[in-house]
Amino acid sequence: MAPTSTTTAIPNNSIESLISSRASNRSFKHFAANTSDGAPKNFKPHPKPLALSFGRPNAQFFPVKKITVQVDEFPFQDSIFKNEEIDEVKEIVIERLPEEDEYSLGASEAFQYGDVKGLPAFQKFLRSFVERIHTPAYEDWAVHASNGAGEGLNKVVDALIDPGDIVLIEEFTFSPFGNNVRNVGGVIVPTKIKFEKNIKGDISADVDVDYLANLLENWDEVRPEHKGNKPKAFYTIPTSQNPTGFTQTPETRRRIYELASIHNFVIIEDDPYGYLTLPSFAEPSLENLKDHDLTVDDYINHSLLPSYLKYDTEGRVVRVETFSKVFAPGLRLGFLVGHKKIIDVITKYSSIVTRSPSGAAQLLLLNIIEQKYGGIDGWLAWILKMRLAYAHRRNVLISSIVNSEAYEKEYIKIISCDAGMFASLLVNFPEGTDNISKLTLLNYKLLQHGVAVVLGYKMAIDEKFSEASSNFLRLSYACLDSDVELREAGTRLAAAVKEFFENGLEY
Amino acid sequence: MAPTSTTTAIPNNSIESLISSRASNRSFKHFAANTSDGAPKNFKPHPKPLALSFGRPNAQFFPVKKITVQVDEFPFQDSIFKNEEIDEVKEIVIERLPEEDEYSLGASEAFQYGDVKGLPAFQKFLRSFVERIHTPAYEDWAVHASNGAGEGLNKVVDALIDPGDIVLIEEFTFSPFGNNVRNVGGVIVPTKIKFEKNIKGDISADVDVDYLANLLENWDEVRPEHKGNKPKAFYTIPTSQNPTGFTQTPETRRRIYELASIHNFVIIEDDPYGYLTLPSFAEPSLENLKDHDLTVDDYINHSLLPSYLKYDTEGRVVRVETFSKVFAPGLRLGFLVGHKKIIDVITKYSSIVTRSPSGAAQLLLLNIIEQKYGGIDGWLAWILKMRLAYAHRRNVLISSIVNSEAYEKEYIKIISCDAGMFASLLVNFPEGTDNISKLTLLNYKLLQHGVAVVLGYKMAIDEKFSEASSNFLRLSYACLDSDVELREAGTRLAAAVKEFFENGLEY
Repeated sequence: MAPTSTTTAIPNNSIESLISSRASNRSFKHFAANTSDGAPKNFKPHPKPLALSFGRPNAQFFPVKKITVQVDEFPFQDSIFKNEEIDEVKEIVIERLPEEDEYSLGASEAFQYGDVKGLPAFQKFLRSFVERIHTPAYEDWAVHASNGAGEGLNKVVDALIDPGDIVLIEEFTFSPFGNNVRNVGGVIVPTKIKFEKNIKGDISADVDVDYLANLLENWDEVRPEHKGNKPKAFYTIPTSQNPTGFTQTPETRRRIYELASIHNFVIIEDDPYGYLTLPSFAEPSLENLKDHDLTVDDYINHSLLPSYLKYDTEGRVVRVETFSKVFAPGLRLGFLVGHKKIIDVITKYSSIVTRSPSGAAQLLLLNIIEQKYGGIDGWLAWILKMRLAYAHRRNVLISSIVNSEAYEKEYIKIISCDAGMFASLLVNFPEGTDNISKLTLLNYKLLQHGVAVVLGYKMAIDEKFSEASSNFLRLSYACLDSDVELREAGTRLAAAVKEFFENGLEY
Repeated sequence: MAPTSTTTAIPNNSIESLISSRASNRSFKHFAANTSDGAPKNFKPHPKPLALSFGRPNAQFFPVKKITVQVDEFPFQDSIFKNEEIDEVKEIVIERLPEEDEYSLGASEAFQYGDVKGLPAFQKFLRSFVERIHTPAYEDWAVHASNGAGEGLNKVVDALIDPGDIVLIEEFTFSPFGNNVRNVGGVIVPTKIKFEKNIKGDISADVDVDYLANLLENWDEVRPEHKGNKPKAFYTIPTSQNPTGFTQTPETRRRIYELASIHNFVIIEDDPYGYLTLPSFAEPSLENLKDHDLTVDDYINHSLLPSYLKYDTEGRVVRVETFSKVFAPGLRLGFLVGHKKIIDVITKYSSIVTRSPSGAAQLLLLNIIEQKYGGIDGWLAWILKMRLAYAHRRNVLISSIVNSEAYEKEYIKIISCDAGMFASLLVNFPEGTDNISKLTLLNYKLLQHGVAVVLGYKMAIDEKFSEASSNFLRLSYACLDSDVELREAGTRLAAAVKEFFENGLEY
């Protein structure tokens, strides 16, 4: 806005002195968008790039298509402005009584001040949802609403991590979580992911539990800089790990929980993609997809992987859930499941810091689940439809890659594409290649061909620690608008890789 | 929930060791509900109490009465599940382009991940709203969405207050704000409110600016325990101060800003009731009310008081707004206005800690304002209707009090009832009365008669500092359901006070 005659400009530096040191020193990092630093001289970006880089779901995944609102003409329009008075003196209802309907929530309650843990109907729904799918292995668990997983993770970090505390994190991860840990003075330390060629010649990945066990047993030797300060927590994305896409086996989960118990740390389970376990890749066809229709019971019992809550006999797991991927991110609604004592301190935090999540979001979510889907199982049936839509999109993208020359010539290999919204591709550089500089250069080739991806090393906790395994790309099939775009993006990617390899790994 | 055969109980004390010291030591205080501590032996509460104690607005003030939602049968129902493909490869829209419509916001944008400062359409609306009513007196100001005023205040405290920093606060206040200050290690120090008999024999109140000026000039002498550590901020509720109900005169505001400038502190302006400046008390009648109809321009120019932003030539004011009182608390939506450099550090905070406010809330608010009210002035016309509804409810309550024997006999006096949703009543104890113990005792008499209020001293920063002026009651006319209830509550209150005074200030 242009200054008007009554406004003045404020001299530089006078405002800085008003800002707290905490706020001045706070840093925020994100696995940034592509920059043009170090671009080859002849680099020319494509005029119509397609993004496989965004983790956000296409709006077609959001079930709400139209909202109609009825608004009053006047406040109290049925009483004071019509000069009608209500005769009876009503008793105050101090506490909301349980409703007959399962999760009934009216507008007047949703628009009122509400419990920071979530409105009573919402909490009731959350408990029922947890009980339907993964009841913790102990008694005193509780739920707490959050403004989505990111905010939920911050609540958990505040509750658990003191300055100097170590948080173990998979070496490639949803790196913004590191901001939360640093914000409370915690320290992040990477732990290894194991990438192995399997018998079919593909790559498979999982948490390297042997590395983790050794790290914990020999902490002072492996991490002398943190001598005597063993990890307080392990942060993990167990299904469709971001950015690598792998899903931990139940055995991995069981063993990691065992280590948590032995070495007394907390498991922070961030599971946004857990409900999107997909059927294996197949050539895209709607007929083919229909073979993978599941009943809700089969889905729960045979398709979903166990949450760490299932192994938790000691209350050392906090599960972080979100409605972002299975409803809509803009709701800003999620929840935490953990031991009541941990949830209690989080409630105190919420009362001071964040207050309650939006009643408007709770109102929309609950009424859609209850009235449109007929409850939890009806909503899970919608999630099953999302799952098939994701599987189809994944099939379209991966098909365009596996049917390419680049794939045939083994310039790229699939690491993982079995769950969630990300596939990961190994870029099969010859031994001894400088992964980071060559991946950076390849990226310009990709951008020239018109496809944007996330480079593995950009989501590394510690680039040096992970250098040898950072030769992969994260591809999201969540965001593009159509099958045509997905296929085109895969084709562009394969063509760029081929060109890069056949030009001796040069732009 | 009863434990099932697969659940176990967790031994006491094992969980506590997992919780951070920060979270374990965090305390949360609220001006609590009435307890029965020290109740007279023969105390018997009324079976149907009426609450003048709740600050929450009656649901009839929330404009939304019905929401209808249209939900898709399948994700991508118009493309993949109908086997139709979109032919054209679309370009990615990296940044949202400005819309033709003023604050148009579609569901697909609102339900997507959004800017932590608020969605672009929402930010645009906020800027226009600020410009319509109280543009700051300098150029580089910015807005930032919050999850309501409570969360907004926490953002501001984080941005400004370092451990040990002093925050001056009106001696009676919205006491939960103290939790935010303590949470970052700040220290709160009360400053005086001046209660004076005016020429009509009523009480008038305002910030005691002379006390404040003296306190600041002679800080080391008046507050030797904080020697050399002058206040960093002044937290104030300028219109319808909570709990006393008074509104600062423009002169008071101008002088306080001058002090801020001289003594280099920030003003945190918390103004939830600023839009509810009411016509003076008159006997309730709808005809009477209609005389107070205002045009939107008259309202802005002659009824609203100036925000501290109007005096702010140095960027030392942060204004905290909320839609809780002029739309609905359950939205959890508000915003901050301040210097761009302060808003920038708050943006970093939001990116890590709270993330963005709910898109669902922004969607509802913006579309109602734009489509139903036709923009900002149309929405202000709705607020004018709320204002008349509040004035009417205030008239009903105050009428039942001023027409009582207790008032005639001057056992009680009105301190303030000119704005917002609170009136305050002085309880005219004889000189030398122990205000706190007698107010506590009177409260049991009020509860026996069936009316709940907030006692002055319960909202004091420092009971001892404010003992002499804590003989007042806060009455909210926001929450009860009808005129009949409001009148009955006032009648009960007056009867209880009379009985108490005529029984020699005994139960």
